[in-house]
Amino acid sequence: MAHGAGGALMQSFLKEYVLKHFKTDRANIEVGIEELDDSAAVNDIVFTTDSHTPKPIFFPGGDIGSLSVAGTINDISVMGAEPIALSCAMVIEEGFPFDDLEKILCSMEETSKLADVPIITGDTKVVEKNALEKILITTSALGQRSTELENNIKEIRKYRKFEHKWLRDANLAKGDKIIVSGGIGEHGIALLSFREGYGFESVIKSDVYPLNKLINSALKEGGIAAMKDPTRGGLANTLNEWSEKSSIGILIDEERIPIKEGVKSACELLGIDPLEIGNEGKVVMAVVKEKADEVLSVLRGREEGKEAEIIGEVREDINGVVMRTLIGGKRIIEMPIGDPVPRIC
Amino acid sequence: MAHGAGGALMQSFLKEYVLKHFKTDRANIEVGIEELDDSAAVNDIVFTTDSHTPKPIFFPGGDIGSLSVAGTINDISVMGAEPIALSCAMVIEEGFPFDDLEKILCSMEETSKLADVPIITGDTKVVEKNALEKILITTSALGQRSTELENNIKEIRKYRKFEHKWLRDANLAKGDKIIVSGGIGEHGIALLSFREGYGFESVIKSDVYPLNKLINSALKEGGIAAMKDPTRGGLANTLNEWSEKSSIGILIDEERIPIKEGVKSACELLGIDPLEIGNEGKVVMAVVKEKADEVLSVLRGREEGKEAEIIGEVREDINGVVMRTLIGGKRIIEMPIGDPVPRIC
Repeated sequence: MAHGAGGALMQSFLKEYVLKHFKTDRANIEVGIEELDDSAAVNDIVFTTDSHTPKPIFFPGGDIGSLSVAGTINDISVMGAEPIALSCAMVIEEGFPFDDLEKILCSMEETSKLADVPIITGDTKVVEKNALEKILITTSALGQRSTELENNIKEIRKYRKFEHKWLRDANLAKGDKIIVSGGIGEHGIALLSFREGYGFESVIKSDVYPLNKLINSALKEGGIAAMKDPTRGGLANTLNEWSEKSSIGILIDEERIPIKEGVKSACELLGIDPLEIGNEGKVVMAVVKEKADEVLSVLRGREEGKEAEIIGEVREDINGVVMRTLIGGKRIIEMPIGDPVPRIC
Repeated sequence: MAHGAGGALMQSFLKEYVLKHFKTDRANIEVGIEELDDSAAVNDIVFTTDSHTPKPIFFPGGDIGSLSVAGTINDISVMGAEPIALSCAMVIEEGFPFDDLEKILCSMEETSKLADVPIITGDTKVVEKNALEKILITTSALGQRSTELENNIKEIRKYRKFEHKWLRDANLAKGDKIIVSGGIGEHGIALLSFREGYGFESVIKSDVYPLNKLINSALKEGGIAAMKDPTRGGLANTLNEWSEKSSIGILIDEERIPIKEGVKSACELLGIDPLEIGNEGKVVMAVVKEKADEVLSVLRGREEGKEAEIIGEVREDINGVVMRTLIGGKRIIEMPIGDPVPRIC
């Protein structure tokens, strides 16, 4: 299972086994599968897919329906693209209750309306009882260039070179500020706690939320060089992917990372690092330093970004990801090996 | 399971339970989910998705890898669009043999190269042993307008009115000829026979094949008003969907329907109607009568279309789908209720 957990083992599994079969060396492919970014891009269209296997399928703050719609919208949005349409492929175990299906579909509808991104195509398969646990939903999505993205890139270019069409993981440069849009670890802790009966879910709910509108406001302000939604592997994974793909160091401050009290207590009790826990309604941004305060205040102006913080910066003088700890030391933040909380998305 | 089988029960399930949650009433949506066509279309992009759950995953003539790539390419192609990119989301059962995964990935690579459509994005999840049977692959794809499609529509307009941007199920008109690109029933019979140990698979292999190049040649000739790949529910389902959505009758001739000897024998022995069996490498076309012979000869010019036949025509003077039988009678061909061969795709 560690090979599918979103961390370092998964990256090496993908590189060794999967990617060699999927080479995308065509001129019209702007972001290919080898980049292992949140989405791919071809002919000015951004394209992404995700299969969703959360356990349980209903959890505090959301369910497999809201998760699958929001998660896929977020993968398009963090490339800087405007999500325009979703697909939904469901595989359902025979005998799955119609009432549960109805709840999931309502939740998909609600999230799709909240984000203003329609589900325009789908597929439904039913398999025998032993062939699948309950239900599996795979969503894919399309995104296009927007005037907000063009504006964002224009703003970056006032301050530094920027050669790319999309907001890729490889776009970070020295001096960029790292912003996180709110408290981390909520989705993973809520799901784990509810699944295992730890009781933290009374105070911690999943943060599952479509971020396209928040991101769109930030692009209007401009200056965002890269974005990522820190799902599997959490903030630690996001920052390490950025550092590796951009070949540059990242320094973050522990005291500036927003983490809710309940998440902190749960992590301490369970011995889990909150930086490695998946989120479903947060975005991490690398913003040119001249625009970081403006972007921060735009984020804080919306409900889903009101706890946003600048947590660090991109540095040439360090290797990998380093965190200044509360007690004044420094800790290397490594790419998580597996995933401390499996089956969360 | 009948609700997911692709026939009449599935159509009513989708209409009653699913579609009411996914309304797509925007101006930029050219083919919406309500049309239950092979793909949707938005802003000149064709978009489709399918989850693949064949049992077994390796079968005579193909496997879940070739099936998932070819099937999704075909869904884009039958809209008249040129498939430009695929996504691949895999969910794998823990402990699934690496060798089997490698075989599947090789098969995806081969089919993607054969069709010349790259896999540009993906997702991989691993779940516990009891959560899924082996592996599930969901592929999505993007398609765009091509000069061949524009040419095809121009050709139709030489002979009759044609108002649509895409080759939709609702496009049939009186006089159109119905062409099938080759023998029917091979995929379903090969899979069923292999699964149940009937032995027919020694002569009948799955026809799984990407049809985009065959279809592209036919579009160059022009005059094709609608296309469909007769997967779940087979030819009977395809013709009934067309008849219903185009509000017009279809008359076919039993003696002109290409069916391999082995498929015939298997169907007789098993008491299955070959018209209701799913195919994965065949396309059914409705072609303006003035161009039918030309399109037929183009199809026959390629290996994957060499057994193509004109099997009938679109008629205003009959209701639904009717077949002239070998013994000279007439039989109503109904929409299959369930699926005589489940888990074939």
